[in-house]
Amino acid sequence: MNVELGYALAPPASPGISRSSLDELDERVEAAHDRIQAGVETGADGYTSLDLYERVDTERIQAVVDEFEPIETVLVIGMGGSALGARAMANALAPADDWYILDTLDPVYLEHIIDAVDLEDTLCHVVSKSGSTVETRAIFQVIRQAMADEGIDWTTRTIATTGETGPLGRTIEENGATRLEPPDGVPGRYSALSSMALPSAAALGIDVQGLLTGAERAHRSLTGSLLKSPAYAYGAVMAELSAHGVGQNAFVTYGERLGAFGHWFSQLWAESLGKDGLGQTPIPGRGVADHHSQLQRWRAGPRDLAVTTLTTGDRGGQAVELDDATPVTLGALQELERRAMTASLGDAGVPAVGIELDRLDAESIGELFVSLEAATILVAELWEIDAFDQPAVDWAKSAVRAELGLESGAHAQLNPPEPLSIDGQRRG
Amino acid sequence: MNVELGYALAPPASPGISRSSLDELDERVEAAHDRIQAGVETGADGYTSLDLYERVDTERIQAVVDEFEPIETVLVIGMGGSALGARAMANALAPADDWYILDTLDPVYLEHIIDAVDLEDTLCHVVSKSGSTVETRAIFQVIRQAMADEGIDWTTRTIATTGETGPLGRTIEENGATRLEPPDGVPGRYSALSSMALPSAAALGIDVQGLLTGAERAHRSLTGSLLKSPAYAYGAVMAELSAHGVGQNAFVTYGERLGAFGHWFSQLWAESLGKDGLGQTPIPGRGVADHHSQLQRWRAGPRDLAVTTLTTGDRGGQAVELDDATPVTLGALQELERRAMTASLGDAGVPAVGIELDRLDAESIGELFVSLEAATILVAELWEIDAFDQPAVDWAKSAVRAELGLESGAHAQLNPPEPLSIDGQRRG
Repeated sequence: MNVELGYALAPPASPGISRSSLDELDERVEAAHDRIQAGVETGADGYTSLDLYERVDTERIQAVVDEFEPIETVLVIGMGGSALGARAMANALAPADDWYILDTLDPVYLEHIIDAVDLEDTLCHVVSKSGSTVETRAIFQVIRQAMADEGIDWTTRTIATTGETGPLGRTIEENGATRLEPPDGVPGRYSALSSMALPSAAALGIDVQGLLTGAERAHRSLTGSLLKSPAYAYGAVMAELSAHGVGQNAFVTYGERLGAFGHWFSQLWAESLGKDGLGQTPIPGRGVADHHSQLQRWRAGPRDLAVTTLTTGDRGGQAVELDDATPVTLGALQELERRAMTASLGDAGVPAVGIELDRLDAESIGELFVSLEAATILVAELWEIDAFDQPAVDWAKSAVRAELGLESGAHAQLNPPEPLSIDGQRRG
Repeated sequence: MNVELGYALAPPASPGISRSSLDELDERVEAAHDRIQAGVETGADGYTSLDLYERVDTERIQAVVDEFEPIETVLVIGMGGSALGARAMANALAPADDWYILDTLDPVYLEHIIDAVDLEDTLCHVVSKSGSTVETRAIFQVIRQAMADEGIDWTTRTIATTGETGPLGRTIEENGATRLEPPDGVPGRYSALSSMALPSAAALGIDVQGLLTGAERAHRSLTGSLLKSPAYAYGAVMAELSAHGVGQNAFVTYGERLGAFGHWFSQLWAESLGKDGLGQTPIPGRGVADHHSQLQRWRAGPRDLAVTTLTTGDRGGQAVELDDATPVTLGALQELERRAMTASLGDAGVPAVGIELDRLDAESIGELFVSLEAATILVAELWEIDAFDQPAVDWAKSAVRAELGLESGAHAQLNPPEPLSIDGQRRG
């Protein structure tokens, strides 16, 4: 893994990071690194995500999954951090038709999936740390009903990762279904490399051990200097750009198999850093398609945005030949487009950072998970905020539960104090 | 179609739009509307997108498509505005397995699609207004080669929408393949309801006439007052919020079939308004999933963001029953989640606007295309910028063409002036 910072420095970037400020920034990184390492070593909440790989019982996960063979299709039911890690792994490393992430209440979509798969050979992995997530329970109920309609005992096709005492845990325990314990002290968005996402990965034949090997490499790469650690280089530069008014981070992935990783990152970055009036909005994008959609704004809009590109070293694929040009592989053409797009940002003074994986395999993906978790934690340390809580989401959750009668107390008002509703022409 | 502005007003929103400023804003909307109408009536470039429905020859499009029956699968090859409109229509109104949008250079993905479809019964619609888009030509070459490998004459399975004299147009003409003319005076992102996207829609059995009926209704709904026109209400409020520092617009769609519409909107908003240091960054999002991913930042991050929700009136689907709660349909639960999320923004003072379609059908989608085009044009009028150009994308396009030898002149520098590359631990 490599992080290229040249286009985030001033010049060419404006705002950008002056070379003369790098030493001072690096001193702050060193101090933050000491705090992070202390957190990891004492097993402090959240920080333990960085050495989660040491405590994951992959043999138990594999053994549990093996009991459900044959598995033709994997359905993951979960919201946010209970689904995005699994989606990122499956998208990157498993065949596209073997899995579906059910993180939607769209009845038409759910019916479509139920019709498309053979539920007899499907493993359903339902994930909710607390077990109280309303959407997860609703979707799981739809799938259980579909299994019942086909005469399938849902407990023979379901693994749940959830606490024992929540509503979901009780359903699992009362019916004697299979339950895995979520990891302690790690919020959902930092827990992909655990019982939260590894069961679906294992069921899809992904090299789980490779993911953990990469995770360990990323953890061991963390040193007290941004100049020696790609993860800290990324976090430190984004924190510093943010201090210069860069409040938006267009996180652009190249190659369809990295697309879901951008959405995993977006939750990590938004929930960990978006608090106390601080934050840098993550905007997942697809290269090269978004060159034809978003580049105009990136390059010529307000100077409050940086672009991150995420690529792999793979430059292969079929060769194409346009007019009399030298033949070029699709992978090489994609990389040329990425470099030209980035250079065009540099020409306009818009900061950009390039992240490149050695290749697209389980080790690199495991390394990427932990590297970006470390980058995120570093930013929070530099900003002196808590990377591991998400207090602003409770209001809406509580309002839904109250409205459904699942929680007592006064219902919140769910309409604007003074509505102003503009109606279009009625259909004739 | 209905637009609810109550949560964008101050109070509760901060920044928000004071009720006392609405009259003055409406006067500016009236003046802008007069300019827009004059543009439409004189057929001025760009403005003519609003009555494009009057000039589209749907009979010719349908007749051309009919010549290619039977059609089992539709492949659309195009970048940006040449693909996003087709994707939005197909996603909303056609079965999910009948179509693929090829706007990627990912060789693995392209191979996967080629393997998955029966090319004999596939219609390939290749779209590039200029005919010079490098990615489009490269992807088209891959598909032509795949057809050749299977002994299929590509001209019997291809419709191109492109100018006659560009590189793509020449390939089509030289081989006697089928070509449709792109509309005059309308940039790609405003031209979905034309030969750019309607051929694929027609091939997928979408009600093309319904799309145009909805487009006409949207155009006729434009009046000189934001209080009487949902499209102008949306544009005026976003322009005004932007003047109060709201530089980000999280555009959140509910239901999987509206997801691609968010990406079409994102190009429209970014390319039309992101210029001269102005702009409001569109951030497509998925409800309810992003409540569990982005809400923390929306509600508690910097006060420079508004949330738009896009829903349909449909509240149906299977009923679920959680614990002792009253049974609720999936559609009703999704709407409850949306309302609670929006109210939680209101509680924190974050501005939000709700757009609701009467239902999810061709008329509503046609209405939505033209309404959001009108909203975008209105913002540009209020800001006194050109909604129809995209000059900032030329630098990168030219650099790629020069690098490939397709354009003469000095090659641009595609590396940072002073690279700063941070390498991770090597494998081993």
